[in-house]
Amino acid sequence: MSEFDLIARYFVRHAHPKNRATLGIGDDCALLMQEADTQTAISTDMLVEGRHFFVGADPYKLGHKALAVNLSDLAAMGAEPQAFTLAFALPRADEQWLEQFSAGLFALADMHNCELIGGDTTKGPLNICITIFGHTPVGQALRRDTAQIGDDIWVSGTLGDARLALGALREEYPLNAAALEAACVRLHTPQPQVALGLALRGIAHSALDVSDGLIGDLGHILKKSAVGATLQVDALPLGTALQQQTLEMRRRFSLAGGDDYELCFTAPASKRDAVLGAALSAATSVTRIGVIEAAPGTRLIDGDGKPLALQLASFDHFA
Amino acid sequence: MSEFDLIARYFVRHAHPKNRATLGIGDDCALLMQEADTQTAISTDMLVEGRHFFVGADPYKLGHKALAVNLSDLAAMGAEPQAFTLAFALPRADEQWLEQFSAGLFALADMHNCELIGGDTTKGPLNICITIFGHTPVGQALRRDTAQIGDDIWVSGTLGDARLALGALREEYPLNAAALEAACVRLHTPQPQVALGLALRGIAHSALDVSDGLIGDLGHILKKSAVGATLQVDALPLGTALQQQTLEMRRRFSLAGGDDYELCFTAPASKRDAVLGAALSAATSVTRIGVIEAAPGTRLIDGDGKPLALQLASFDHFA
Repeated sequence: MSEFDLIARYFVRHAHPKNRATLGIGDDCALLMQEADTQTAISTDMLVEGRHFFVGADPYKLGHKALAVNLSDLAAMGAEPQAFTLAFALPRADEQWLEQFSAGLFALADMHNCELIGGDTTKGPLNICITIFGHTPVGQALRRDTAQIGDDIWVSGTLGDARLALGALREEYPLNAAALEAACVRLHTPQPQVALGLALRGIAHSALDVSDGLIGDLGHILKKSAVGATLQVDALPLGTALQQQTLEMRRRFSLAGGDDYELCFTAPASKRDAVLGAALSAATSVTRIGVIEAAPGTRLIDGDGKPLALQLASFDHFA
Repeated sequence: MSEFDLIARYFVRHAHPKNRATLGIGDDCALLMQEADTQTAISTDMLVEGRHFFVGADPYKLGHKALAVNLSDLAAMGAEPQAFTLAFALPRADEQWLEQFSAGLFALADMHNCELIGGDTTKGPLNICITIFGHTPVGQALRRDTAQIGDDIWVSGTLGDARLALGALREEYPLNAAALEAACVRLHTPQPQVALGLALRGIAHSALDVSDGLIGDLGHILKKSAVGATLQVDALPLGTALQQQTLEMRRRFSLAGGDDYELCFTAPASKRDAVLGAALSAATSVTRIGVIEAAPGTRLIDGDGKPLALQLASFDHFA
């Protein structure tokens, strides 16, 4: 099967209902229209076999996850999904793989009304690179550098189950079947918090998505906003499977697990009801886990308010 | 060196003079503003080691080429370069490689006033994925599906030297040192025809960039425009190194060589002076090589107008 047949068979779709791209796949570039007074939010993520997913990973779930991690970046900016490009390298043109991958990809894309507008396919070690486009009214994006002293720190959903699944799949520890299944759902098919991100515009002062571990990711907000934080470690919302594990695992995986794709955001205490209302409208949960302070650094405290000294490292691809 | 150190050291630059991106590297998304009544042209290309470039390729030239192939897609749409994202997988954090790669990348980016606004770095088999953004006034983009019967077919610059270099480097045939050097410049550091693309807005009916071989790429215009063509094979402008080769090589590499990154475009005969003026303003050459006709397919003729039957295949990554 030729490259052009591949593209035609699995990735060229009929005109999107909203048809925001004036010109989609099949020319040198796609052409995208923007409404007046909006900004385009752009993010790109590359997923590598053996690094971001296991060799032989389920292609349907991989298609889902490849787009989900990009949608999560839009969510973290409070941007509405619009379109994406897909470039990927494949060892060979495997029709069954492509059929499943594209099915998983488009199921999530359709859920978020996000149109595939272009791409590139080539032969090579399996690698998936998606660049995604969303839009926000000018000045309303949720940034990292705008946390304010006194802000509450919040996190959406639950943390740590994806990391728990990863360790079990790597045979670092055993998990019972029910826990493994629940945790694997979080690892393989994360649900980006797009609706929450949109609902938090005008409420949150700052936001990002938790992809490399809460403590490291929160550190980006602190550094860019030139502030510090105190975190109540035992207030972190734990994934259902993680709740059954040891205290050490609960703390470690919720604080520094990675692959959560939840939103961490800050908002003034005066907006607590508004934050809870935003979560309700987005059909998700949010938990208040700390406070932004002037003193640099992150102070961890336990349920009794006592300082905790934990050795934790954020996930780093070249560490 | 950590991922964040890498990004900071080689890829985060001071604010771009024109500062079109409201927010660049360092948040979940970049934010891009567009002027009213413009469309955003978007293209993505993935380059894989051992497939698009040799193992151990010069990183400076690789940085140049990775961006050049994307700029060429903007050129083919008549879009003005604006910004790009860079995602790449590297086997290891090699500082010398990164320094050279980023130098080659930014030298070309600066030449075209194109700003790096975001990216992703990860560990993995060497793979470079750039997504590029440009803009055109609404309705003025140069498309593939708008060639008209009677249009002249034109090509910019010269063809075939990149393919000639590739064959020599693969030891398919010997080349003398001067020819090899000239041909390698075309293979490793193509110069995208951005200025010509902009100058052809309002003149050309259709355009694309020649990346997979002229005859295959022209075929996309023909198919999408539902027309055919006659091509004068011996009128094709040959690269300086290719001019010294056999007739068979001259024809094969100019027609189906690949990696030329020239523009192939069609324009009405009434616009011949305007086309030549556009080329002059862009400081490049253009050559008239054929005509668009109603009958489907591509007819090849020699210098005497006699039909040529050549067996040629466009480059295809999964053929």
